[in-house]
This record gives sequence, structure tokens and C-alpha cells, in this order.
Amino acid sequence: MSNIAVERPAHRQVKMTEGFWAGQLYKIHQVTVWDVLEKFEKDHEEGIMKNYEWVIEGKGGRHVGPPWYDGLICEVIRGISDIIAVNFDEKLDKKIEAYAEIIAAAQEKDPDGYINTYTTLICPGKRWGGNGGSLIWQHETYNIGCLTEAGIHYYRATGKKRLLSCAVKAVNGMCNVMVPDPGTPGYPGKNIVPAHSLAEEAVIKLYCLFREEPGLSGDMEQEYGICVQPERYYRLVKFWMDHRGVHHDRYSMPHYMGEYSQDHCRITEQSEVVGHAVRAALMYTGLTALGIETEEADNSYLRAAVRLWDNMEHTKLHISGGIGAVHNEERFGYQYDLPNDAYLETCAGAALAFWAGEMHRAFGDGKYMDVLECAVMNNVLPCLSEDGTRYFYENPLISDGETERWSWHGCPCCPPMFLKIMGCLQDYIYGFSKGRVYVNLHMGSRYEGTMEGRDGSRLELAVEQTACGLPWKGTNRIVLHPQEKASFILAVRRPAWSGEMTVLVNDELADWPLEKGYFLIEREWQDADVVQISMELPAVKVEAHPFVTADAGRVALQRGPLLYCLEETDNPLGTDVLLGEGELKITDSALFGGISIIEGETAEGGKFRALPYYLWNNRGKGKMNVWIRQQKAGEVREERKEEAAGFAAHGAGTGAGETDLTGWEGRLYRRYDRNITFVPPKA
Amino acid sequence: MSNIAVERPAHRQVKMTEGFWAGQLYKIHQVTVWDVLEKFEKDHEEGIMKNYEWVIEGKGGRHVGPPWYDGLICEVIRGISDIIAVNFDEKLDKKIEAYAEIIAAAQEKDPDGYINTYTTLICPGKRWGGNGGSLIWQHETYNIGCLTEAGIHYYRATGKKRLLSCAVKAVNGMCNVMVPDPGTPGYPGKNIVPAHSLAEEAVIKLYCLFREEPGLSGDMEQEYGICVQPERYYRLVKFWMDHRGVHHDRYSMPHYMGEYSQDHCRITEQSEVVGHAVRAALMYTGLTALGIETEEADNSYLRAAVRLWDNMEHTKLHISGGIGAVHNEERFGYQYDLPNDAYLETCAGAALAFWAGEMHRAFGDGKYMDVLECAVMNNVLPCLSEDGTRYFYENPLISDGETERWSWHGCPCCPPMFLKIMGCLQDYIYGFSKGRVYVNLHMGSRYEGTMEGRDGSRLELAVEQTACGLPWKGTNRIVLHPQEKASFILAVRRPAWSGEMTVLVNDELADWPLEKGYFLIEREWQDADVVQISMELPAVKVEAHPFVTADAGRVALQRGPLLYCLEETDNPLGTDVLLGEGELKITDSALFGGISIIEGETAEGGKFRALPYYLWNNRGKGKMNVWIRQQKAGEVREERKEEAAGFAAHGAGTGAGETDLTGWEGRLYRRYDRNITFVPPKA
Repeated sequence: MSNIAVERPAHRQVKMTEGFWAGQLYKIHQVTVWDVLEKFEKDHEEGIMKNYEWVIEGKGGRHVGPPWYDGLICEVIRGISDIIAVNFDEKLDKKIEAYAEIIAAAQEKDPDGYINTYTTLICPGKRWGGNGGSLIWQHETYNIGCLTEAGIHYYRATGKKRLLSCAVKAVNGMCNVMVPDPGTPGYPGKNIVPAHSLAEEAVIKLYCLFREEPGLSGDMEQEYGICVQPERYYRLVKFWMDHRGVHHDRYSMPHYMGEYSQDHCRITEQSEVVGHAVRAALMYTGLTALGIETEEADNSYLRAAVRLWDNMEHTKLHISGGIGAVHNEERFGYQYDLPNDAYLETCAGAALAFWAGEMHRAFGDGKYMDVLECAVMNNVLPCLSEDGTRYFYENPLISDGETERWSWHGCPCCPPMFLKIMGCLQDYIYGFSKGRVYVNLHMGSRYEGTMEGRDGSRLELAVEQTACGLPWKGTNRIVLHPQEKASFILAVRRPAWSGEMTVLVNDELADWPLEKGYFLIEREWQDADVVQISMELPAVKVEAHPFVTADAGRVALQRGPLLYCLEETDNPLGTDVLLGEGELKITDSALFGGISIIEGETAEGGKFRALPYYLWNNRGKGKMNVWIRQQKAGEVREERKEEAAGFAAHGAGTGAGETDLTGWEGRLYRRYDRNITFVPPKA
Repeated sequence: MSNIAVERPAHRQVKMTEGFWAGQLYKIHQVTVWDVLEKFEKDHEEGIMKNYEWVIEGKGGRHVGPPWYDGLICEVIRGISDIIAVNFDEKLDKKIEAYAEIIAAAQEKDPDGYINTYTTLICPGKRWGGNGGSLIWQHETYNIGCLTEAGIHYYRATGKKRLLSCAVKAVNGMCNVMVPDPGTPGYPGKNIVPAHSLAEEAVIKLYCLFREEPGLSGDMEQEYGICVQPERYYRLVKFWMDHRGVHHDRYSMPHYMGEYSQDHCRITEQSEVVGHAVRAALMYTGLTALGIETEEADNSYLRAAVRLWDNMEHTKLHISGGIGAVHNEERFGYQYDLPNDAYLETCAGAALAFWAGEMHRAFGDGKYMDVLECAVMNNVLPCLSEDGTRYFYENPLISDGETERWSWHGCPCCPPMFLKIMGCLQDYIYGFSKGRVYVNLHMGSRYEGTMEGRDGSRLELAVEQTACGLPWKGTNRIVLHPQEKASFILAVRRPAWSGEMTVLVNDELADWPLEKGYFLIEREWQDADVVQISMELPAVKVEAHPFVTADAGRVALQRGPLLYCLEETDNPLGTDVLLGEGELKITDSALFGGISIIEGETAEGGKFRALPYYLWNNRGKGKMNVWIRQQKAGEVREERKEEAAGFAAHGAGTGAGETDLTGWEGRLYRRYDRNITFVPPKA
């Protein structure tokens, strides 16, 4: 029925139970969620919900915040919904319910179910680009996409349908405006493709929801008098995707979008990730989601998704899992253009994680989980301050000491995206295919539900991960609880960053086959079977591809899933030290409630100390650096860098000189110490 | 045989004889040409020709200037060739001949006729992107394209074939590497499309040259032992054009080009002018040239050219005829994004003029001549200082007083392009179709040659323009000298900037029909028939489309083909004065050997004085301004501008508010004083 390699469990079937991530989630739930709500409710003095109230009151002429504020509050609702779905919280539920009522009341003012407070309050004559309206500015599809997500997630969390009904009404409205319908005058509808992507995946989710819950359509019709038309939702997304780059009136818009909005050519011919990185990653997420739902012998959507992913992973992915190198227009740079003072917006990292999740669902390859984990750990988690109330928007890999987290921002887009990805992180931990259970992420958690057995029957099953020591210790313990004895495969991810990794089943060691980044443990399982995992977690130096001139002669420090950095406060010799060939030492530290730090010696015999990157800027202002100079062979590359930069205005190349690319095929980073046998697993 | 609406005369059939442009050309020939040669010969101390000498001597490891220096000196050769073709100059001819010998000798060192001194001297293993070579940096197709132009123009000027033989060899080499050939292993050749366009039009010209002179191929083969294959040249250009956006290994390059190099999608689906403005305009020139030579019922090249042209003219053309608003990457901005401190490189204006010339050849519409004339007058001519030895690269429409012409530049690309367009400006003055003679540009000049009569016979004919008073006075006198009495149409361009225009034939006034910007004078002509032209040349205020927020509440001053500006030295009240509704006065001035200036009153009753923009910065440093504040209705738009700018980081739209677009259809600028009946002619 669809191109799914690995099914995700339902959100409520998984719970983060212990360890590093459960702790993060607890803080987010107890502190950050309330902080974000309070700041939005006081935003621009009036508060974000004032927009809906003004629509209800029919008072035009003013609007709180930029046009995409409707979307932002809906993203917050989605994030909170996911959190309370597994840790119910009555106060938060009441809050969301009240928001839903206001949004619904505002929508009821419009006979077509159109909801975009900015347009209604400021330029009511300019819906959908009409009368000089700007699709790229007014964010209509984006806002409705966020509402759709909010409606679905809140329904899944609580069973309440009010907000979902708003989403359906609004999406129906988009279908009426845009969906090609040969039987309707004006075919093929209005040539609108989302200027800011997001709605693509959201509307596909809506389509899937009604397919998965066949009775829901009838309920919605009875309760809210709206007509649910899942096939039209699918066609809407397909229309959006197929018309990228060629929709008829795209160049009549005041602001043509082009590469900025991934609207420069047909999606099936796009070969490089370009433009605004958040829009891009959300577009590719929707593309992959559409590809999964599209039955075609030669699935051009998924082929494009793979091509774009590979281009991103091989040429444009910062070592932190961040994307979007360029401040100007928040966009991707050229290939291998990975400056250390890059933009790397939190939102882009979250969007990349969503994309990685969809790619994993389509292809079941552990490499997508490597990127998801890296982005969440080293590009998204750094967003939040230790106290849970301040936020990074940009996540550069070097700082002159002026960078600090914001308490709030004129465009507070990152806290909502942060809540969204954190709220659903648990959805990626486990996966299922026929006769197979995946453990994708090593995180203290519990799954309770069913799986499809080899013979197609449903088997009740619980899986738990207990005593997971990551990211500080390379240990984990998976306990299986099948309802009855059953043969199936447990696929345990072997992360790209792990060194030697042993997997014992009930204390038996075996040489499990490795496939697409997973150890495949095939046997007859019974209740309380234990899989004991032990990974080597060495501190390693990593170097970047020779084409990355910004990192020529430099290395970054990693341990397990964590990227490390040097902060000024720990390093009297400065943050741009010159490393020698000496060993790196891992030390326990009492900082931040207990973490591991990396220590070592500089080339001159001094000391340096590195902290996990996600924790930087929690002890006052100061310089920070990720890519550190490494003695040996670096000087030559530094020269080349300068030469290349000399003519940068004319689109500099990689400069001259012959470059040895042996061993770099298909990879952007690799371990620096080549005399050590460790090689990140690729199979 | 080809899609030509209006044929251009051969270069040597026309001569600038008198008036404004003859004076400019004289200065360029006597002063600027020698200045440019001297500076190139001393460039980086060693001089530009050292590269060829080092190749001859087999001394690698060093190169003078960036990789595109081969191209630049060839552009100079082309420009000089055009100049000496009509005003022969033995010293210059000797110089070029010597250059040709050195280039030829360098090329002879390579068995394949490959010639790119940077690659040969610095990275010989990296031809054509091989072994990590960078097509975008090494400029191989660009340099060979420039050599091709030089060879053709020098041959046409002098009949000498040595440099042409180098071009043929080099192009043959490109064909061997790239041209698709189903019979050859590795089909379809190497997937290279020019990263910096130019070669497209150059190679089309080579194809046309051998078609026009059938005996030349044999001569080349005999004298130089090279095989001339015109059909392959056509196929090479077609390959380049058809593979834009989709060539196989485009995304494996270290520097993918995308919009920057107009390689973001198939050319037939491109709908907006984007990327590096010089590359873009040269690409579109080649596209149009290819379209002209392509026999197809539904000519997709020309359709794309028209679509791109309209997009450029309606949304991205500065009032000076400059293109390429953005300093960063020297590229086009978004639609209607026309800041006054824009980049507007001289090279881009010259390239736009070339494109306009090709569009005119394909469609015969006077509107292309309007843009050609505007760009040359107000974006290219300003490049050169009054003394002929200093050069603007950027041509912004506002200056804080720090901008000055350069004596020379690290990337001296503009002086060669300047010489190229100035050297061939005369080619655009006249045009021919069956039974019709065009006077496209009102410039003191003489054509001597033939035309095709109505019955297809050749008629000998001379046409001269004498007593042309432009740009200062709206008078011109066209005298025809047909060898014998003959009926044909004389098409006289009615410029978009002209006010009332009368055309008397032998003192008889008539209401000549206007078609595509031309008065069509149909009659039986005989020797010494005189066409007397008189145009109203009012000083006018021009306003920009409401979407151009940079010019909201402002007007620019124009008179005839000239754009005017306020310089600090003439304006004690400053250059950003507030104009009132009072009249503009045209005054003669003795400055610069006699020009017309515009004077008027500010809203507060003070005086201001405006100078032709091309002359600014010839009297020392100082502030300059083109777009001046205009009392009346401006304030509202200023507010909108600020609002839009507020969220610029997120791709600002046009802001809110309802905008009246009546009367703006298909135009970017219009006369400000709406109570005056003058409307620029569109028919």
C-alpha cells in the first residue's frame, strides 16, 4: 500500500523512561514549555493570541508579529500535544483546549474556513497572492500546514477533534483553491506551491490519518458538518510537488522564489540542496512523505529524495548536523562551503531530523539515524540553555565571545521547532517491519504494542532499554517481552560513531551480521530475553574533506554522538590551540550534574579541555571553537585556502594543486588518526 | 535558413562619422586602447602575455592574474580589431599580430590544441574538471570563447587567419571532448556546460562565419592543416544549451553552479533572470544566437529568450540599463529588488547590450534598441573617465562620496568588455530586411553596401546620418543614396524617450505608420533624398513601479537617452534634495566641452542642478544621487518600505496595504507627471 521499509510505532506506544533524554524531556516539559507559552502570550505586549481575537471581533488594521505567527503557535501546540500524550498534564491540556476554541471561533468568521490572521487583519483583499498579495510574505500554506499538524497531534494525544476540524476545514479550502480538477472551470486551479514548505508533509499526514482511522471521517462530518476528502489531500500535495519549478504564474509574483524556495526546477530534476535551509529540509521531508505514499513502479519522488540527501550529506552537512551555512537568506552555501561561523539555524537542524526520519521510514538505513541523532544532539539541543529558558537561533562552530542565547527573538521560530522535534523524538527510537523489530536509537525507553510476525500475525510485545549509559558510557541493555515465544529479527543499530561494539544475547556472544548499519539478531525470543550492548567510546579527532577549505589543517573532537568544543573559560591558552599528536583523555566532570570532558596537550605541551558542544555558553560569555588546528600537514592546505579566497568574488574554486581524494569517496568527514584501525562502519 | 527579422550589416560597411559617438570612439581609440594595453602588459609586474611565454618555455608553477586572463586579453584583441577595421592603425595591428604569434606558439605546444595557460601552468592534470579540477574556477570554455571571438574579429578586420586558426583548433578540441557523438565510446561526451558563458555565442559566430564564407574552410585546411567542421560547432552549442540544468555530473562538481551560472534547470523551463548577471546576459545572448540559427517549428530557444527578456525588463532592470543588483556574487536580486547602491557592473551592461542586439536581430522590435541604447549610454559609458584612463566597475545610482574610478583593478574585466561593446556599437546602427532599411540608432554615421530589394535583387545603397544633435538636441538628418530609384521602406526608430517626433521627407510632413517602435516610410527613393527628424527632448521626471521599494517617493531625471544625477559639487543643498512640482529647466553648460544640464527648484525654493550620469566623478570625489525625493504622496510608500524591510531576513514581501497597479502593466518605469499627456510609445 505504501513504500515503507520501517514502520514507526504510534506516538503513545513509546515512553522515554530514564537516562539522558528522559532528563532533557523532563526539563523541557516542566520549564521550557511554560517559558515559551508565557513569552508568546506576552509577545509584542498584546500576545500572539490577540490576532485571533481581533479576527473574532472584526477589528482589522493591526497584527501581532510577522505573518507566520499563526504557524508558530500551532507548532507549539503540536509540541505540547506530543509531550502530554505520554505524560498527561491537565494544566497544559486546558491551555491547548482554550487556544483551540479561539482558533476555531476565528475560523468560523469566514464562510470558506480561510484562516490566516495576518491577511484577514492587514490585507484582506490579498488572499492567495491575489491583488498583489505576496505568497512568500503571507505564509498562508505554511500557517495552515502548522494548524494541520497541531490538529492531528492534539487529536492523537487527547482524542479531541475541535482543532482537527479547523485543520480539515482549512485544508478543504486550499483544495478548493488549488487542487486540479478537470471537471471544474479554471482547471488546474490556482498555481500555488508553498513558498515556505511544511504543509506538504502535514497534509500527507492528514491523508494518512483518515486512511488509518476509517470511522473518523464520519465522526467529523457528524460533529462538525465538514466533508472529509482524503484523496483530494493527496492530490493537493502531489500538485504542489509536481508544479515546483514550472507552475504557470510563478514568475509573475512580486517575489519569485527560485532556489531560495526550491522552486527553481522540477523536483524530479533537482540534484542539489539549495536555498533557505529550513524551507528546503521541510520540502524534502514532504517530498519523501509523498514518495512513501505514491505507488509508482519508478518512484521519482523517492529517487529525487535520495539524490538530494546524498548531495546534502556529502557536501553540505556541517559536523554538528547543522545545515544552512549562509547567514544571508539563511541558506545553503555552495558544495563544501562549510564556514565555521556558519548560520546553522536550530530550525534547520530540526527540519533535517524530520527529513532523516522520513528517509529512514522509506529505506530503513541506519545512516539516516546517524544524521538524525547528530543533528538533534549537536545542532538542536544546543538551542536550549541549561536553565531551559534561553535559546540559540544560530549555532556556529566558532564564536568571538559575543554570541549568546536569546531570551526571546523578533522571529521566535526556533523554540516552537525545538518543542516539535523534542516532543516526538521518542517516535524514532523503535521501528517495525514484517518479522523485525528495530532499535534505532539507544535511549532509555519502553515500547508497548504489537509487531507483525513472520507469518503476518500480530504479536504483542514490549521492548525496553534500561541502563543506557549514553552519551557518557557506551552501554545499553535491551529487554524483550514478547507475549509468547516467537522467531523474529531484532535489528540493533550500530552507530557510525561507535568503535568496537559487542552485542550479547542472554550473555552469549556471536558475530551478528551487519546490514545497513544494523546488527541483525535472528532467533526465537521469549519474555525477558536480554541484549547487552557495549560500545567503545573513544575520543576521536575528525578531519573534513580536502575541499572544505574552512577546516584545512584542523580537526574536530568527537566522542560517541557528542561533538566537543573548547570554551574560553576552560582554556587559559585560548580556544584556537595547536594540537599535537598526543592522546586525548576522557575525564569525568561534575559540571552540569555530571558529564565527560576531553583533555589533552597542545603541540607546545600546554593543556586544553573540551566540553560537549551542546553545553557551551552556559557559564557566561566567552570565545568558543570546534575546529582546532592540528600539527602535521596542515600548513599546505592553509595556503591553498588563501589562494582560493583571493578570487572569491568570482566564485572561487578549490584553488590549485593536486589533491589526493583517495578514501574520501562518499564521505565528508573521517577519523584523523589514520594509523588506528577504526573505520566508521558503512555497511 | 535562419530566424532573422533584421540583418546586421557587415562591420566594415558602417563608420561613425561625426557627433557625440564619433567623439567618444576617437578618444577610446587614441587614449583608452593604449592605456588598457599598457596596463595589461605591466599587470602583476610580469604582464599578461607572460603566461603564454611560460607555456612556450614549459615553465609551470606560476601564472599572472586569475585563470580568466587569457580571455581578457582576447577580448581586448577583439575590441581593437573592430576599431582598426574601420580606422586602420598600423601600430595597433602590429601589436595584435605579435600577440597572435605568441598565442599560436603557446597553443602549438599542445598536441590537442588545448589552450588555457592557467591550467597548463598551475594544474596540468586538471583539464575539463578532471582530477578535482574546477570548471567554474579554471574558465576553460570562457577563455576559448574569447579566443574564438578574437580570431573571428581580427580576421574580419584584416583578413589575417593566424589567430582564427588558433580558435578553430581550440574549438575542435572542445568538440572532441564534449560533443555528443553516438558513434563514439563514452557518448554523450563529457558533460560540460560553460560555467562562465560566452563561448556559446562565440562558437555560433564561428559556425556562421564558415557558412558565410564557403571558401574559408578550404583555406584554413590548406594553410594550417586543420579540419573545419561547422556542423559540429553548432552541435556543441546546442549540447551546452540543452544540458543546462540536467547534465549528468553537474552535481558531482566541487562547486555546483545552479542559479549562479544559470544551471538550475533546463533552459527551456527557465523563466526568470537569475544568478551572476554577466554570465546570465552572455548566456541569454548565446541562447538567442542559437535560437536564430535553429530551424524548429516551435523554437523553444527563442521562446525562452523572450520569456527571460520580459522578466528582466519588467522586474530587474535598473533605470540606467544596469543589471545585477547584488554585490555578493555580482548577481540579480529578486524581482523589483532594485536598490540604488546596487552593483550594476559595467560588464553586465555591455553583456545586456549584446543580448539586446541579438533580440533585435531575431524580432526587429525597437524596444530592444531602447534598452541597448540606455545600457550603453548610462551603464557602460560611465565606466570611462573623461580623460579615458580610469574605469568604473560598479555603477551604483547613489554614492556617499567614496566611490571613484579605478586606474586598474585586481580583476580588470570591465575595460575589455568596454572596448568590445564600443568597438562594435556601429554594427547596431543600421539593419536590413527584404525591402526595408532600418535606422535603429540615431548616430552620426554612414553605411555603404547593398540591400535586398522587394523583388529579391540586390540594390547598392548608402545611408548617412548627418547633423545628428543627440544627445543634446533632438535633431537628425538621414540622407539616402540608392544607386537607382527604388521602392522600399525606411524604418526610422522612434525612441521610447522621445516626446513629439516629426519626420519630414524632402520637407514633406506625413503621418507615418508606427510599428514595433519604428516609423515606416514607404515610397520610391532616389539619390539624395533627405529625411529630417525632429524630436522633443523634454527633461522628465520618472517614477518606478510601486513594488520597487527603494524608489518609493522618489523620481529620477531623464532627458532623451540620458539619465541625470545630482553631484555634490553642483549642489550646495546636498544631493538628496526634496523636489517640488515646479518645472525643470534645460541649460547649456560649458562643462566637458559643452553639455546640457537640468536645473530646477527644490520644494523649499532652493536650487538644484543635475548632470548627465555618465559624466559623474570627473571633478573629484563627492556624493552623487540619481533617485531624488519628490514631494507628494511619497510618504506613504516610504512607510511601506520600512515595514517590508522589518522582516527582510525571512524573504520580505512587498509589505501590506493595497497598491494601485493600474497603468503599470508590463512596465517598470513611467513618467511621473501624470497630467502631461506624454506617454512613452509602446506600439
